[in-house]
Amino acid sequence: MRPIYLDNNATTRTDPSVVADMLPYFSEFFGNASSQHSFGAPVAAAVRAARQSLQNLLGAAAESEIVFTSGGTESDNSAILSALETQDGRDEIITTTVEHAAVLAFVGHLEKTRGIKVHYIDVDARGRLDIEAYKRLLGPRTAIVSIMWANNETGTIFPVSELAEVAHAAGALFHTDAVQAVGKLPIDLKSTRIDMLSLSGHKLHGPKGIGALYVRKGVKFKPLIRGGHQERGRRGGTENVPGIIGLGKAAVLTAERFQEELGRVRKLRDRLEQGIVQQIGHCLVNGDLDNRLPNTSNIAFEHLDGEAILTNMDRAGIAASSGSACTAGSTMPSHVLKAMGVPASALQGVVRFSLSRETTSEEIDRVLESMPQIILKLRGMSAHWTHQPSQTDELASSFV
Amino acid sequence: MRPIYLDNNATTRTDPSVVADMLPYFSEFFGNASSQHSFGAPVAAAVRAARQSLQNLLGAAAESEIVFTSGGTESDNSAILSALETQDGRDEIITTTVEHAAVLAFVGHLEKTRGIKVHYIDVDARGRLDIEAYKRLLGPRTAIVSIMWANNETGTIFPVSELAEVAHAAGALFHTDAVQAVGKLPIDLKSTRIDMLSLSGHKLHGPKGIGALYVRKGVKFKPLIRGGHQERGRRGGTENVPGIIGLGKAAVLTAERFQEELGRVRKLRDRLEQGIVQQIGHCLVNGDLDNRLPNTSNIAFEHLDGEAILTNMDRAGIAASSGSACTAGSTMPSHVLKAMGVPASALQGVVRFSLSRETTSEEIDRVLESMPQIILKLRGMSAHWTHQPSQTDELASSFV
Ligand SMILES: Cc1ncc(COP(=O)(O)O)c(C=O)c1O
Ligand SMILES: Cc1ncc(COP(=O)(O)O)c(C=O)c1O
Repeated sequence: MRPIYLDNNATTRTDPSVVADMLPYFSEFFGNASSQHSFGAPVAAAVRAARQSLQNLLGAAAESEIVFTSGGTESDNSAILSALETQDGRDEIITTTVEHAAVLAFVGHLEKTRGIKVHYIDVDARGRLDIEAYKRLLGPRTAIVSIMWANNETGTIFPVSELAEVAHAAGALFHTDAVQAVGKLPIDLKSTRIDMLSLSGHKLHGPKGIGALYVRKGVKFKPLIRGGHQERGRRGGTENVPGIIGLGKAAVLTAERFQEELGRVRKLRDRLEQGIVQQIGHCLVNGDLDNRLPNTSNIAFEHLDGEAILTNMDRAGIAASSGSACTAGSTMPSHVLKAMGVPASALQGVVRFSLSRETTSEEIDRVLESMPQIILKLRGMSAHWTHQPSQTDELASSFV
Repeated sequence: MRPIYLDNNATTRTDPSVVADMLPYFSEFFGNASSQHSFGAPVAAAVRAARQSLQNLLGAAAESEIVFTSGGTESDNSAILSALETQDGRDEIITTTVEHAAVLAFVGHLEKTRGIKVHYIDVDARGRLDIEAYKRLLGPRTAIVSIMWANNETGTIFPVSELAEVAHAAGALFHTDAVQAVGKLPIDLKSTRIDMLSLSGHKLHGPKGIGALYVRKGVKFKPLIRGGHQERGRRGGTENVPGIIGLGKAAVLTAERFQEELGRVRKLRDRLEQGIVQQIGHCLVNGDLDNRLPNTSNIAFEHLDGEAILTNMDRAGIAASSGSACTAGSTMPSHVLKAMGVPASALQGVVRFSLSRETTSEEIDRVLESMPQIILKLRGMSAHWTHQPSQTDELASSFV
């Protein structure tokens, strides 16, 4: 039986029609997009069309607002560095405790090596931001606010449109890491005050190794990667043409299928989650359940070890993960769940299920068949489970 | 008739067998290489094999010395930044006046914004480095020397192995931009003291959007792009798996075909160059003719306009460029040729022919048929040509 892939927040399958569109750009239209001769022109035109597809998906005002990068991490790093280098007299960053490492590792480094002050906004037990604290932190020295649109581990959505308004009132730039949001939420940048937005191709059935940074017209920008004048001087290096074409096609597919697919995915996710909670009990669904990505379910199984659960699931042909791909493999508890104050008894036994438009109802049936056996078996083997009183019963019931 | 592609220093055609190897990694083995479940393991194994192919091509001591990046530009930027961040008390850079923009734009920015002192070594009329000046510039404050292995415009090769020894004696790190050298010159890093080396996939019939940075074991490294722990913490961001697989295959093909292909390419290049010089006259072959990449010929046609020559060539089905892809489109004279002191009368009419293992003898025949007509026609239209005495006759005769 084909294994079931429920790790789409880590990466998605590249849509075969995306690959089909990319193919001619390897060995047939292989020219450098910047070249003036006949090998360059058709390539430049195709890159432009892809840029317009991104513009359309994001509701950006102009195609020139799209800068192609190598992925979400580069986009995040670039946005933050640019703000610091262009916002004279402003040397502070505001972000949250629950960002992806692509933001946290970068700002942490700036803090350590360049004397930049970084403020981290806290979240509550549901992963919601402390908006009052955010407003108090904003000031004349804030260069940039970087807050994710949706969290990769819990799916919790942040009110970035409102947060951007507040940042603007304080004269700061607003960047959002929308790597998990693009393709899963409606986005219309024209109608917001968001200055910069990061996305990554492989999270929306596009290829790996390509991403984009939206930079609003009029926002000063300085590049992270410097070389030739590609991307209007905003990102040096020969354009990754097949990647760009693939991302363009992924944007088109996403825009077309968006409405119908996400409703279906949400129903599957809800059925999966409710099934697990009802059949298994003693589990905590993490995140802001009223305001979450439609494809994500983060469930903690009390007193169990997440790695053990995932290994057993893998043997049963179900792929999921404990959280972000980048911390998988290490047994460190999630910084996101810790920031939310998830009780210690539930911090280790976490499974993030993340669905996609390719997930089928039959697959969810199979997962619902397997999960209770896996969890009951592990509980039988767990000393903690038998001897410790449950702490999550109450918490969970307040959520689900 | 198929157009003839002689712009391989700008980019090469991705070998169809490279694309074939990449294909399964888009929609079949699409997992995240960092994932612990069954979708991750085969991907991680394939990435490892690709890393070993790069190790083999470069003669590196260990596969862990290979860091995958998004291309040559990122590799160059990363190497230089890392040296500054890891070499305590050293805040100077030595480079040359003829580097690619991937180095010059980056060090120029560091100079302007971070108070880093950058020394630029001059070249002579053949593009050879002033080695004595280099030795004088090295000192206790030199963090890194960054000198290209071979120049992209003229093909001139620098003695990086010796230059690295000298840098080491002064306690500085040595980085080489080998984007044009890899695949065109024998490289065996084990037997050198080179600390870091940049390469780019699309210059060796691999895909665009992927490159590598070699970092010698024991050399401290800090990343430019920060996020997850990919590439042993040396480059954040989900791995570009198909790109890595493609670069690995390109490395294998290059290593296999290296000897036989380059001899053939060199003969074709020499026949092209000699044919043009003999048939057309009044042209200057730029670069160190005794020590040049086997595929590159940089020819200046006195008193003519390079854009006009290239446009006419393009109409005749021949694609070449004036120099680096990044300055094409702009009519700025090449910084490389200016640094070499090429006379003003020859600075505008430059054509860089760059061949590859795919170039055929019949294509060279066709180019040799077309070029005299194109040049003679343009000379007939050129006021400069008719009224100015030639300055290059003597120069050219001293070279060719
Ligand atoms: C010598 C040299 N260095 C660096 C680069 C940059 O490589 P990429 O465009 O793949 O980033 C190039 C190619 O344009 C080059 O020729
Ligand atoms: C929220 C978020 N931001 C950034 C990233 C980084 O994207 P990439 O790995 O494509 O660089 C990811 C994916 O891992 C993510 O989930």
